[in-house]
Amino acid sequence: MKIVLVGASGTIGSAVAAELRRRHDVISAGRTAGDLRVDIADPVSIDQFFKDLGEFDALACMAGAVHYAHLADFTPEQFEVGLRSKLMGQVNLVLQGLNQISDGGSFTVTSGLTNDDPIVQGAASSLVNGGLEGFVKGAAIETRRGIRINAVSPTLVEESLDAYGEFFPGVKPIPVRDVVLGYLKSIEGSQTGRVYRMGWSRDG
Amino acid sequence: MKIVLVGASGTIGSAVAAELRRRHDVISAGRTAGDLRVDIADPVSIDQFFKDLGEFDALACMAGAVHYAHLADFTPEQFEVGLRSKLMGQVNLVLQGLNQISDGGSFTVTSGLTNDDPIVQGAASSLVNGGLEGFVKGAAIETRRGIRINAVSPTLVEESLDAYGEFFPGVKPIPVRDVVLGYLKSIEGSQTGRVYRMGWSRDG
Repeated sequence: MKIVLVGASGTIGSAVAAELRRRHDVISAGRTAGDLRVDIADPVSIDQFFKDLGEFDALACMAGAVHYAHLADFTPEQFEVGLRSKLMGQVNLVLQGLNQISDGGSFTVTSGLTNDDPIVQGAASSLVNGGLEGFVKGAAIETRRGIRINAVSPTLVEESLDAYGEFFPGVKPIPVRDVVLGYLKSIEGSQTGRVYRMGWSRDG
Repeated sequence: MKIVLVGASGTIGSAVAAELRRRHDVISAGRTAGDLRVDIADPVSIDQFFKDLGEFDALACMAGAVHYAHLADFTPEQFEVGLRSKLMGQVNLVLQGLNQISDGGSFTVTSGLTNDDPIVQGAASSLVNGGLEGFVKGAAIETRRGIRINAVSPTLVEESLDAYGEFFPGVKPIPVRDVVLGYLKSIEGSQTGRVYRMGWSRDG
């Protein structure tokens, strides 16, 4: 398969890329690094990205910014960061890529646990992740040509513990290789409209 | 309690207003009707609304527009309708109202079943409703002074069957008076961070 990974240089993205490269044609993409450049917060940049990419079989996005702040301090502009980047950035990758993906191809977006297991300063993250999961459920029943769409919702990964651990008290980190499994299931499997919760459960 | 209802003239809003008026001081608000006027898609209008309102004990919003279209036809502008109105309109009512709500007061937003039980042409609705429910979960752990926030997620109501029934095949409509119960639980009860699914369940 020709697989494009947006955010392929991050902690999760590079692990997904390393695994998929063993048996697929992987194209990396990112805002500042990669075979192709794309700023997902900018629909014009996404248009150019798909022109450069041509037809493809799978797209997974592990990129997207969200602002973190205490609820009482949030400004509308800070909420917009997540809306434009992690939320609509990933949604627009799907909407703008629908015409170019091959029959039976798949889109995989990345959400996160905060919409079900919230953290302090995470109100925008909760909104964005909930929105992404809703979109995946809604979009999956309307794709044509066997095109699929899923979300991976990773918990905290061990490799990011130093950077983010203090924001997730009581959350058990898992190795990034276990998060990679969600992307493999979405890309190499056949399910659609699913949210793969990696390392956590709604009942936890 | 001094309770302000945004969207008090709609099918659900007017039923909620009629019930709450029996024992509370209810102020109606809306874009084109009500004691106070507010366009929730416009943060400046929300600012003026709160200046007019003064201190209050509970706010429930049953307003908010979303565009419906087939996935392949959706434009970014059409997605923005729901982002600006039903999603960030309700979020901004909470964020901008936090300083003016009394101790122990409550915010109640309205989502809907489409993020878990999707319909054709509903991808933006699924995103918006998922985003609202994520926000409620995230915001509820960060409020101070006993302030609460919940979402009501109504299914199709009998009173809207003629207008919307064809978009919800197989969905059992319920009388609007049963949806009202969710708002009563949020406003008159003591729970927070909850999504009240009225007339449907995730297992359905």
